[in-house]
Amino acid sequence: MELLLPHASNSCPLTVLGFLERAASVFGGSPSLLHTTTVHTWSETHSRCLRIASTLSSSSLGINRGQVVSVIGPNVPSVYELQFAVPMSGAVLNNINPRLDAHALSVLLRHSESKLMFVDHHSRSLVLEAVSFLPKNERPRLIILNDRNDTPSSTSADMDFLDTYEGVMERGDPCFKWVRPKSEWVPMVLNYTSGTTSSPKGVVHSHRSVFMSTINSLLDWSLPNCPVYLWTLPMFHANGWSYTWATAAVGATNICVTRVDAPTIFNLIDKYQVTHMCAAPMVLNMLTNYPGQKPLQSPVKVMTAGAPPPATVISKAKALGFDVGHGYGMTETGGLVVSCAWKPEWDRLEPDARAKLKSRQGIKTAVFAEVDVRDPLSGKGVKHDGATVGEIVFKGGSVMLGYYKDPEGTAASMREDRWFYTGDIGVMHPDGYLEVKDRSKDVVICGGENISSMELEAVLYTNPAIKEAAVVAKPDKMWGETPCAFIREFCKTKLPKYMVPRNVVFLEELPKTSTGKIQKFLLRQIAKSLP
Amino acid sequence: MELLLPHASNSCPLTVLGFLERAASVFGGSPSLLHTTTVHTWSETHSRCLRIASTLSSSSLGINRGQVVSVIGPNVPSVYELQFAVPMSGAVLNNINPRLDAHALSVLLRHSESKLMFVDHHSRSLVLEAVSFLPKNERPRLIILNDRNDTPSSTSADMDFLDTYEGVMERGDPCFKWVRPKSEWVPMVLNYTSGTTSSPKGVVHSHRSVFMSTINSLLDWSLPNCPVYLWTLPMFHANGWSYTWATAAVGATNICVTRVDAPTIFNLIDKYQVTHMCAAPMVLNMLTNYPGQKPLQSPVKVMTAGAPPPATVISKAKALGFDVGHGYGMTETGGLVVSCAWKPEWDRLEPDARAKLKSRQGIKTAVFAEVDVRDPLSGKGVKHDGATVGEIVFKGGSVMLGYYKDPEGTAASMREDRWFYTGDIGVMHPDGYLEVKDRSKDVVICGGENISSMELEAVLYTNPAIKEAAVVAKPDKMWGETPCAFIREFCKTKLPKYMVPRNVVFLEELPKTSTGKIQKFLLRQIAKSLP
Repeated sequence: MELLLPHASNSCPLTVLGFLERAASVFGGSPSLLHTTTVHTWSETHSRCLRIASTLSSSSLGINRGQVVSVIGPNVPSVYELQFAVPMSGAVLNNINPRLDAHALSVLLRHSESKLMFVDHHSRSLVLEAVSFLPKNERPRLIILNDRNDTPSSTSADMDFLDTYEGVMERGDPCFKWVRPKSEWVPMVLNYTSGTTSSPKGVVHSHRSVFMSTINSLLDWSLPNCPVYLWTLPMFHANGWSYTWATAAVGATNICVTRVDAPTIFNLIDKYQVTHMCAAPMVLNMLTNYPGQKPLQSPVKVMTAGAPPPATVISKAKALGFDVGHGYGMTETGGLVVSCAWKPEWDRLEPDARAKLKSRQGIKTAVFAEVDVRDPLSGKGVKHDGATVGEIVFKGGSVMLGYYKDPEGTAASMREDRWFYTGDIGVMHPDGYLEVKDRSKDVVICGGENISSMELEAVLYTNPAIKEAAVVAKPDKMWGETPCAFIREFCKTKLPKYMVPRNVVFLEELPKTSTGKIQKFLLRQIAKSLP
Repeated sequence: MELLLPHASNSCPLTVLGFLERAASVFGGSPSLLHTTTVHTWSETHSRCLRIASTLSSSSLGINRGQVVSVIGPNVPSVYELQFAVPMSGAVLNNINPRLDAHALSVLLRHSESKLMFVDHHSRSLVLEAVSFLPKNERPRLIILNDRNDTPSSTSADMDFLDTYEGVMERGDPCFKWVRPKSEWVPMVLNYTSGTTSSPKGVVHSHRSVFMSTINSLLDWSLPNCPVYLWTLPMFHANGWSYTWATAAVGATNICVTRVDAPTIFNLIDKYQVTHMCAAPMVLNMLTNYPGQKPLQSPVKVMTAGAPPPATVISKAKALGFDVGHGYGMTETGGLVVSCAWKPEWDRLEPDARAKLKSRQGIKTAVFAEVDVRDPLSGKGVKHDGATVGEIVFKGGSVMLGYYKDPEGTAASMREDRWFYTGDIGVMHPDGYLEVKDRSKDVVICGGENISSMELEAVLYTNPAIKEAAVVAKPDKMWGETPCAFIREFCKTKLPKYMVPRNVVFLEELPKTSTGKIQKFLLRQIAKSLP
């Protein structure tokens, strides 16, 4: 049997890009994208993406295969279309967070060697400033996005911009033969991490890893055909955990939204009978704390990640009609690769026990290969006892190809022992469920005791008077480090004495990354400077 | 970016075998397999499979990696377990149809060089006869399956058998580290085709192609967690279209059944609240024709393939509460790779128009790469006009690795133009939906006109007096060939004159393959001998 080798008919590269063509055939007349007064069908989205891809790959723009094309904008139809159109042209898709400052943006543009950038009008001045920091021969050419109905008329192409998005569209060929990757290992997207612990890194995903992430997303949520999917999660954030492509596989209606506030979200859910949404913990928090909200007319499945939602948030959400699933992943895995799959027998437990089980990140998804926790010193797997902490490690098809232009960073995380090291600290429970304890840099080592900042934060959150909390280490001559809590309201609760924060700092706002994660490294600097 | 190469953490071989471990963690306490009085949980199935795999890979049985282990039996728990246990030991799984005769079976055993064979007691004498045809040094060692409650006590191991299934189980280690494939291209299963047109061929699937077939099955049916799946489709038939593994991914309850008759099936559906089942067209036919059956208490999703169900069968099934999906695949693709995905706008059509659309095989599944119809002479794609016939061709991850020991057969179907040629004749409709017209050998060429035997059969089936029908070519001096119909009841219907069968042969039974397909090559011999 060893004579049987792969053939072109069974080894064609795995890619999500074909989902669009099929969506146009099966769901051609169904809505693909809705935004304010814009309504597109899957048939239209298919030909619009082909048009854009066709112009991008033409000589007029001078972009070669494998070069980077950036996109900066909120959740609007054009940004969705570019998730397909850019890789369909053979270029590498680079989504950029519009909440970066001009300096950080210029660093990314230089690092990615981006050749072309699609710019939403809200990011216009930010981008122009960032580009001005670059030498002239390193500046990407700019295209202004003008597919939004709320775009001021002044955002036609002017001297700063080569063309408008609709201009690029009009010049394109709707029958363009999209560029299939020569190998499934060809890079498809470049996503910069939000950098809660260090400077941003360029995560490169291949067509294969994107395919596997998307399959993960589809299977783990048992996504049915034709769901109505609400886009509160930014598309620029790990390509919306791969749902930018997953929604095409099932012919979903994508509801775009640029303002994420509770009344807007509740209105859209009601208006379009939303069935599914992903949401950062902050958004879920906001929705469940919205005063006076009545229960939803029909239940909405919500997926969240980043931090397990506190039990109180889950129960409030349930009362409103949200069926909350949650999991764990990172930019390096494209989406969730661990999710808190509900065991049928948990139904019989008391609410407290259920909440405790639900606060664990969960078990590897069906198509992901392996998840484990390893001792960072010995490199051996720790006991699966729910208590022994170690670094969380992954093996699976959706793990990135590596960090762009960073062989040291790549080698440090993708090691010779065949594992990808996440940099997160956790424990493995006897039933194979993972619980994240902390970012490795966020553990507070106080008098030799490891204190999980996440555990302390969970205690703080049980106080209804506290809206947000973050705990970091403060250097201490006596103890080495002591926990320092940053909260928005007063906390008073019972804790083992050694864990009680020695310092409590009240802030108007907690500093956050553009994806809503609390920036502990900034808090650490403040803590350090406290007397 | 070309510096970024696959690493062990992102390129671990795709395989379905890990589904079992996860099922034991998530669904450990839930039922995995039910049969008569047998009830297993996923936790038990997991350790039972590890035990069997452990003994298989031990030196006691002398099986080396990559060697073939055969299984012959009906849909019982042990046969399900062996779908995991055999490949988990590193051996290649070869399911054999128990309805073969001893001669055919001995041919397969010799061809596969099977080293070990698990034998259900109903196949005992068949297997002993088949093995007696082989030289002594080419005979596989035999293990008798004795996990069934209805097994007579005489089926303990005797001199013909090395051991019993439960004996092999008891000697095994439930903590065995199962053998992960070194590459995803390593052969995992060997399935012999049922041979409607020619002698059986050994289809080899790799871990990767099995993985892709299974993902196909899970996604295309949007299979939810914890369905109740009824096994009317034989597990030996293309591994039950990959549902042997798919059901583990979602923690299904597998209801085993060895007698496929209407009262048994309806009883099981009712008793276990079945939600999903696959069924050959013949079984669906049998269920819908069962007199006096009342509608089901809750709807059951049925997947069928092999031939599109006639409109009358679909509407009868719907009235009973069966939600019938159907598609098209073959042993060479492991399961369905084309399915008749329902377009939302078809809901508004008249019943006749809907039935016509539903009788097309459908469109490629989301994760399958490409389906087309090509002119066998020019090798070019035919017009997508729903009229121009050609040979159906495939590209996609679930296409087999090739035919075992048949480089000519492999090269004839997996060609230099990068396509897999199915040997089936079809047309492609403008909306990307495929319609199968015939097996290429079953087209009747009458006076230069191509007559589809399937089209003629469909007309015959519209007559309620006809239970079964098959049309083949009869050699004719004047016309070259003329259609010859074999039916079980009289037919009288309107047809274009040239299409009317010149011969009608009445038979008590139509000859069928062991999977229930009508054996046209036998009918062709009869037709040839007619005056």
